[in-house]
Formats: sequence, structure tokens, C-alpha cells
Amino acid sequence: MQVGFIGLGIMGSRMAARLQEGGHTLAVHNRTRAKAEPVLSAGARWADSPAEAAAGAACVVTMLSAPDAVRAAALGERGFLPAMAAGTVWVDCSTVNPSFAREMAAAAAERGVRFLDAPVSGSKGPAAEGTLAFLVGGAEGDLATVRPLLERMGSSISHCGPAGQGAAMKMVTNLLLGLGMLAFSEALVLGQSLGLEKDTLLESLLGGRMTPGFLQGRKGKFASEQFDTDFPLQWMHKDLHLVAESAFETGVTLPATSAAEEVYGLAKRAGLGGLDAAAVYRLLWQAREEP
Amino acid sequence: MQVGFIGLGIMGSRMAARLQEGGHTLAVHNRTRAKAEPVLSAGARWADSPAEAAAGAACVVTMLSAPDAVRAAALGERGFLPAMAAGTVWVDCSTVNPSFAREMAAAAAERGVRFLDAPVSGSKGPAAEGTLAFLVGGAEGDLATVRPLLERMGSSISHCGPAGQGAAMKMVTNLLLGLGMLAFSEALVLGQSLGLEKDTLLESLLGGRMTPGFLQGRKGKFASEQFDTDFPLQWMHKDLHLVAESAFETGVTLPATSAAEEVYGLAKRAGLGGLDAAAVYRLLWQAREEP
Amino acid sequence: MQVGFIGLGIMGSRMAARLQEGGHTLAVHNRTRAKAEPVLSAGARWADSPAEAAAGAACVVTMLSAPDAVRAAALGERGFLPAMAAGTVWVDCSTVNPSFAREMAAAAAERGVRFLDAPVSGSKGPAAEGTLAFLVGGAEGDLATVRPLLERMGSSISHCGPAGQGAAMKMVTNLLLGLGMLAFSEALVLGQSLGLEKDTLLESLLGGRMTPGFLQGRKGKFASEQFDTDFPLQWMHKDLHLVAESAFETGVTLPATSAAEEVYGLAKRAGLGGLDAAAVYRLLWQAREEP
Amino acid sequence: MQVGFIGLGIMGSRMAARLQEGGHTLAVHNRTRAKAEPVLSAGARWADSPAEAAAGAACVVTMLSAPDAVRAAALGERGFLPAMAAGTVWVDCSTVNPSFAREMAAAAAERGVRFLDAPVSGSKGPAAEGTLAFLVGGAEGDLATVRPLLERMGSSISHCGPAGQGAAMKMVTNLLLGLGMLAFSEALVLGQSLGLEKDTLLESLLGGRMTPGFLQGRKGKFASEQFDTDFPLQWMHKDLHLVAESAFETGVTLPATSAAEEVYGLAKRAGLGGLDAAAVYRLLWQAREEP
Repeated sequence: MQVGFIGLGIMGSRMAARLQEGGHTLAVHNRTRAKAEPVLSAGARWADSPAEAAAGAACVVTMLSAPDAVRAAALGERGFLPAMAAGTVWVDCSTVNPSFAREMAAAAAERGVRFLDAPVSGSKGPAAEGTLAFLVGGAEGDLATVRPLLERMGSSISHCGPAGQGAAMKMVTNLLLGLGMLAFSEALVLGQSLGLEKDTLLESLLGGRMTPGFLQGRKGKFASEQFDTDFPLQWMHKDLHLVAESAFETGVTLPATSAAEEVYGLAKRAGLGGLDAAAVYRLLWQAREEP
Repeated sequence: MQVGFIGLGIMGSRMAARLQEGGHTLAVHNRTRAKAEPVLSAGARWADSPAEAAAGAACVVTMLSAPDAVRAAALGERGFLPAMAAGTVWVDCSTVNPSFAREMAAAAAERGVRFLDAPVSGSKGPAAEGTLAFLVGGAEGDLATVRPLLERMGSSISHCGPAGQGAAMKMVTNLLLGLGMLAFSEALVLGQSLGLEKDTLLESLLGGRMTPGFLQGRKGKFASEQFDTDFPLQWMHKDLHLVAESAFETGVTLPATSAAEEVYGLAKRAGLGGLDAAAVYRLLWQAREEP
Repeated sequence: MQVGFIGLGIMGSRMAARLQEGGHTLAVHNRTRAKAEPVLSAGARWADSPAEAAAGAACVVTMLSAPDAVRAAALGERGFLPAMAAGTVWVDCSTVNPSFAREMAAAAAERGVRFLDAPVSGSKGPAAEGTLAFLVGGAEGDLATVRPLLERMGSSISHCGPAGQGAAMKMVTNLLLGLGMLAFSEALVLGQSLGLEKDTLLESLLGGRMTPGFLQGRKGKFASEQFDTDFPLQWMHKDLHLVAESAFETGVTLPATSAAEEVYGLAKRAGLGGLDAAAVYRLLWQAREEP
Repeated sequence: MQVGFIGLGIMGSRMAARLQEGGHTLAVHNRTRAKAEPVLSAGARWADSPAEAAAGAACVVTMLSAPDAVRAAALGERGFLPAMAAGTVWVDCSTVNPSFAREMAAAAAERGVRFLDAPVSGSKGPAAEGTLAFLVGGAEGDLATVRPLLERMGSSISHCGPAGQGAAMKMVTNLLLGLGMLAFSEALVLGQSLGLEKDTLLESLLGGRMTPGFLQGRKGKFASEQFDTDFPLQWMHKDLHLVAESAFETGVTLPATSAAEEVYGLAKRAGLGGLDAAAVYRLLWQAREEP
């Protein structure tokens, strides 16, 4: 399939490579060209603008950092949406709030373009191995059209409902990730301050009934306190902010989630934003003697 | 074994019955005698005071609501600690902060009494069935002495370290329970407000990698919104307050846990304190039209 | 001066009337026409669209509920901005985040229209009496042009800097209002729960060094617990959300403000949104026996 | 009057000196003797224990750091309470929770000793100048007895009600101090992040209707960002913790106060505990580039 791929960051570059290895033909665009080199040298066509990436494509995939970036690529100067042919499909894998996804779905529909919000769970490892989990909103028929693409990039594809519902489930997932990681960090901090050994806590709590399973993959990071980055803390902060936005838009109140956003925000300001999100532990467990 | 059992609430009455069925001889004391009737009619001796319950006992078990209640029973008027013989064992199953447990351990040691802090995980069902999980602090030899008693009441006995370390692990567990239940409630509230079905959310999230396993037992409550009580919300509030106390005493800061304490507090004031702790969901998901 | 006035809610209707009484000629537009009747019967021209309100106007004043409403009125279907002549002035009195104000300033500049963000402090009383406080961002010369209008509506005009800085100061003010009112509510709740008389607390604290002066005007509301509306609680919630948005955009973390947003959100969901913002007190001081 | 003075820290040493200069005869005790040197060289008698300080005293004044320290001095080994003659007065100026004050009042009454809780507002400057504000709980007659002492140390004496009500008003005051200082810090951080000048913010906000008057004295600290200590941040943390304790004991929920306790706690752990409480600003406004 002829695919326009826009956004080649940590996640997007690996996802594009998976499509390429699967035999799909790529035209790629990114804010900085350097990050495109691996896929270009493997045969992808470089596009100077989002619009050029969409030219001739049966499907455009976007993997961008935030709603504003998606809007600019789609509808800004030389945006891709006006360049897409009627009947083609735009798959937005970016993490955005559901109301934004529905806004993009409407903008696409005006031009006869089909739209799926398909944000992903998983970090750079699963992106490289094609084992991401897609949470998809949109029409079943449209999902069927691009399913072969999603199956190259992911090992789990959940259809959550009409446009926006993939994004909705992503918000729910982000809330559980962000709060779950912070809750465990607070538990570790409390336990150690009360004299329990960190190793004992990690052994007895991870994998048990008291903690969510996703934390098991972080055991080594908590043990070594080397928070090499699977998922940057500053993204967690941004994702929790999108959750807060979504909550405000729909009139609900999420006090613990909101407190968590603040803690990740403080951690980011304390210089931990580039480390793995689990480094929020370090903010709470810093030495007492620090100046 | 001759056992003095003090505190016959929801948990204590079931735990005492398990000991009695196991062939141990009980002298029981409770603030209100009515709750003692089942064990009395099964042959236990009534004690008018904590001291009387301890008379002749090889072991005293306490299952009380808070540190103050434990202190009063042990050291207040006609308290049991001065009535215990040297070499006997006091097992405190109440949920208390670790510094209090160590204080009681010291008070016991002054009188030659051996002390174990042995708080439990589990609610009334496991108490009735003898499948509680004990988190024990104290000397290994002392634990060996009373292990037959604990094995009648529980199916899991974890020795966490010296006196106070059972209580410490209980604080860690309480933090994860309280925050985990609130996090999931916020996730449910968010998901529904964004148009996802509650049943879909329950099916896709409980039992998965995003949520702790202990929540699976609450699926029916969240589905029906009938929060019949396994573990009262007001106890969760109290337990999170003990966590906050412990954190303050050891100089650590737990922002999400603290936010959670406030939410359970508001829920309690909104009249939900007697329902199951999962009813915190109801506070966050109350109808918009409410006056 | 020929003025287009858009947005005739609680505040806007009173502000427009002040301009009219001052001899200015008004063309008015509002989502629902009914609210325009008082100014129409006093001689204002009805405009079916924002664009019509701007026709022939030397100045357009907007007083709308949120950034989205302002954007729609200015740039949506039959929006007023394309209808304004070059050199005329748009004064936006709505409460918006500073980045949005700067975006509108840029959109105006593209069309040769001069822009001031001029949000107000004060509620319906000061709006009716022309004693609002304006916080103005934009060029000094542009402020000079419309100063006669602002002086009809307000008794204090602070020039805070270039475009966006009026909105910035409004964010700061909102933070202090929202947190100040909540802090005092928590103080009242604590004091009473500890046995102090509410009247004693009101007398000793309001007007003193421990509380901000703006609270004195709320004394009667706290005393009577009749929270007739000066400034609706749901607006405070919205305003604190804009503060949170602004904080996120500029990378700072405001933990107490964020906690306050959640509390007003819970109060709104508990049905207090239409009462005065001080009714947040009622959420925290509800009877214990409530079901 | 013959006065036993126990607790010669930053506050106590200055208060004792004021009494001495007023002609009262002092016997003083402190954990470390060095801090007593100034009053000793001015003629005070050193007491090796709290009990010795109380010997022969018509009044014992305590100025200690926390409830536990007060209890130990009063009722611990060689405590002063058993050493006081019937009819003499104990004035506790320490900041304690009201339930603790009532407990001490009862302990005193058992021995025929009169008790006043008389915590103070004000920091080291007012302590040195005798311009503290006393918030007094206890019998009016007992206050009359010691009024000459309080008038040497303070310029304002408020009788708040029976025993515990001075402490209660102190809790209310602490809440307003802690939240007020944090609210202003957040306002400063937000304003600057949005491009407003710090000096403009300080000038326009301090002394105005949006901020409590007590903050004016901090203007220089916020301006210079040199947070030399009037009132240590770690005391503010401790005081807000006492507020939280009191709130829990009386069954009320204070979400913003609780969030504030966490922020001061994080600031303390970040090494700011010994600076003035206003240094909480620094935690929130640390450079983005910090590692």
C-alpha cells in the first residue's frame, strides 16, 4: 500500500520502519529530516511537506506529539488533509484528547476522507518489534481497510467504538499508567522510609495482587535507580494533562489524577523530564541532605 | 492454647470464631458485650476487662480499630499488659502505624512479654474462612510460638522483619489499596464521561495489565453500583490517615496518597462511609442534576 | 462612539447599558436575543450576527464565556473580525488564557485591526455601577483610543503590558481569588469543627492580616450560608481551569491551585455550580448525616 | 513573679529574655544548655530538669516544638507537672493540636494545676520586641493571673474560649498562613511564567485586596529571593501537619490545606527546610535547566 507517514520521532521512526519491512511504499515527512535517514536509505521517498507526503497515498499515518502538531500538519500551511484523495484513510496514532479526534474526523469527512483515531500503548521496544497495542475509534469498514498496516505495527488491535473512542480509551489507559506508576513510587518511598528493604518490596509487590502488571517491566529501573528511558517522564506529564483536559471538557473531576499531573510536573521542572516516567520515584526519594 | 481475645468487631468476631473452632480456649472482651454472644454461646469465657481476658492466657490477640484503642486496652484502666505473665505473647492484629507498634513492643518488653505486630490483609469473607494474610513483625521464635493460631485465621503468613515491620508492610499495602481503588474509580468515571460503556471498561481493564489484581473482586460492585460492604470506606479513610502519619514521622512526602485521603474523607462526609470503599466511585460519578 | 457589543450575559448586559447611558451608540449581538431587550428598548440596534454588530463600528467589545466562544464570534461563520475596518479597535473583555489573547491579537493585526485584551475584576454589582477593574494588554495608543469606553464601565484601568498581559494578570488574579476563597472556607470549616463559633471566626479573621480584603464582601454569605450569586461557582471552576491551562503552556506547576480546581469541580458536580463561588464552603461543611 | 521557663529555642529564648527584663525571676530548662547562656548570664537560674524549673514557680511557661516534646517535659522523667504546686499556672505557648491541649488541661487539673493554652502568632522579631499575638484558651480567671507575663511578651492577647480554644484558633491561623504563602508563591510563579515582571507583581498585589496583609512583610524576601529565616519552612510543614491531624480528629476534610502540606514537605526534602517558609516559592520557581 502507498503510505504517507508523518512524524518520525522515537515511536514513529520505528513504526515506519515496520511498515517498510512489510513491503509498503512510504513517503515520509518530519520536522527535522535527519531522523528520516534510516527509512530514506531503505527506500522511502522524502516529502518536503505534509501535503507532499499525502500525494498519491491510499493511507496517511500520523504519529505526532500533541493535538496542535496534528492540526498544523493536517490543516496548516501545505497540510496533508486537502491533499488526500476522497476515499483514502487517515490513521492518527498520536495521543490526543477525544474531542480533538472527533474534530479531526469531522474535518476529514468534509473532504470525503475516512478517519481513524488509533493511539498506541507501548514504548520504543514494542514499536521496533511490531507489538504495540492499538486502541481504535472509527468505522469498522475503515479499520478493515488499514488492518494490514496496523498488524505490521502492533500485535493487539482493539476497536473501541466510533471516532474518538480510541482516544477515549487511551485517556483511560494513560490515567492508569500515570497514577499506577506514581502509586507504586509512593509505596516504595514509604516502605523504605519505614525500614523495609527495597529489594524485598520489589519482590513481594511486583507481580502480586496489589500492583498492576505493567509495572513488572520496570523492576530493574526501580532496583538500579537508573531510569533509562522507555517512556519519557515529560510525555507522561503531557498525557496526564490531556486527561485533565478531557475530564474538564466532559465535566468530571479526577482529584488523584490531577495530583499526579502536578507531581510529574514538579519532577519535570526538577530536571527529570528526559528520564523514564518511573523517575518520579527519584523526586520523592531524593536525599534529605540535598541543598 | 489459652487465648485472650480483645476486639470482636466485623473482623475480630470471625477471627475469634476460627480459633475457637480450632480447639483453642478463649476468654473474650469487647466494648459492647452483644457482639461477643456467638463465641460466648460456643463456650468462650466473658471477660469484664482487658485484664481479665489476659488472665491465664498464653497469648493475647487484639483486633481493635486504632492505635488509641490499642493503647487504652493494653495500658489503660484494667489494661491487659500488666496482667500478662512473663514469656507470654501479645499478637496485635490491629492496623497501627509502625512507630506505635514499636512503642507497644517496648512496653511489652519492659514486662517480659513478647510482642508481634501482625496486621491482616483481607476483609470479612477471608476472616470467616481463615484465609487472611498476616504481615508479621517481631522475633522469629515468637512467631513460631503462635504460628498455629495464625494458621487457623490466615492462609498466608509473611514475616517482614523485627517489631514494627509487619505494620510497615501494612502501611504500604494500605497505600496501594486506597490509591488503586481510587485510580480505577477515576478511570471508570473518565471513560464513561467520554462515552465508553462501563461494562466494556470493566471487562477490558479488570484482570489486565493496567489494574492491580485485587480489584477483580470488586467487579460486581462497580457493575451494580451496589456497594455492599466488604471493607468500609471509613476504614480506608482511617488507614490512609495512618499512612500519612507514618510518612510524616519518617520525613517523606506522598502527594497522591494524600490527595486520596482527602477524597475518601469527602466521600465519608457525603454519607458513604459505611459502604464499601469502592463507593468512592459514587462520589465522583454522582448525577450532574443533583441539588 | 459607534460600538459593536457582543455577549450580553450577567456582566455584558450591564456593561453595555453603562456605555449606552454614556451616550455611545450600540449595535448588539447575543446568542439569545431575549437578554438584549433592555438595551434594545433603550435604543440599541440588534445585529443578527457578530459581523453585523461590527459593521460601521469604531470599536467592538466582546464579553464572552470562554476562548472557544470568542474564537467562534471573531472568526467563525459571519464572524466580526473580517467585518471590522482597518484601524478600528477590538476590546476583548472575556476571561481567556494569555496565549489565546496573543493569538487573537495576531489574527486582528493581519486585518489591520487593533486589539486589546481587557478582562475585568468584579462581579455584577460593579458591572452595573461602572466600577469594574480592567486589566489591559496591548499598545498604549490603542488603550488611549478606547479609554473613554473603559472609564464608563470601570473605575480602575491598569495597563499591564503588551497584548496578552491583561489576560496574564487576570490569570494571577483568578488564582488568588479561587485559592483565597477556598482557603478561607477551609479555615472556617476547621475552626467550627474545633468548637469555635462561626461568627467569632468571621469577626476576627475578615478584615484582618490573615485574609485578603476581597473576602470582606462575602461576610454575609458565609454568615447566612445563603450563597446568592455574585460570581457563580461554575465560573470560578472554569477560570481556575484556564489558570491550569496557562500554567501547563508555560511549564510551571501550581499544586494548590490545581487542588482548588478539583474542589470547585466537585462542588459543581454536587449541584452548587449556580451559587456564588463561596458556596465551596458548603461542600466542605455538609452535615455528617447526609445520605 | 517566679517563673519556670522551659524551651529556649528561637522563640523561647527571646520570650524568656522579655520576662527577665520585665523583672520576673526565671528558672530555665532547655535540652541543650548553650542556648540558655544569655538569660543565665542575666541572672536566671539553670534547672537540670523540667521538674527543677517548676520548683517554687507560680507559673511555668513552655515553648516547645511539638506535642510529644510537651508531653515529655510535663509528664516524662523528672517532668514539671508533678513538681508544680496546686493553684499555680502552666501556660503552654507551644503550637499543639487542640485535643492535645485539652488532654494537658485534664492532666493539670488532676493535680490542681491551672492550665492555659496560649500559642503565639509572630516570629523572632516580635518575640524579641514583645509584640507577639497570644491566642488563649482556658479560664478567664487564670488568664487574669498571668496577664502581666503575657503583656511583657505580646501586644495582643485574645481569649478564644475554654482550654483548647487558643490552640484551635492557632490551627486556623496556621492554615491561613501556610495556604496564603503558598497561594501567593503560585501567583508569582504563574505571573512570571506568563511574562509579567516580578516587581510589578509584588507592587500591584501586596497590600491590595487580593492578598492577606501578613504577606507585606515578606516583600523583600520574594524580591531578593534571599529567604533568610523569620519562620522556618520546616515549622510551617509541621504546623500544617498538626492542622491535618486536627481536621482528621474532628472529621473534616481540607483538600487545599492538605495539598499545601505536601508542597512544604517536598520543599523540606529538597533542602529548603531551614529557610523562611516563603522559600516554598523557590521549589516552584526553580530553573528549568536544572539537572
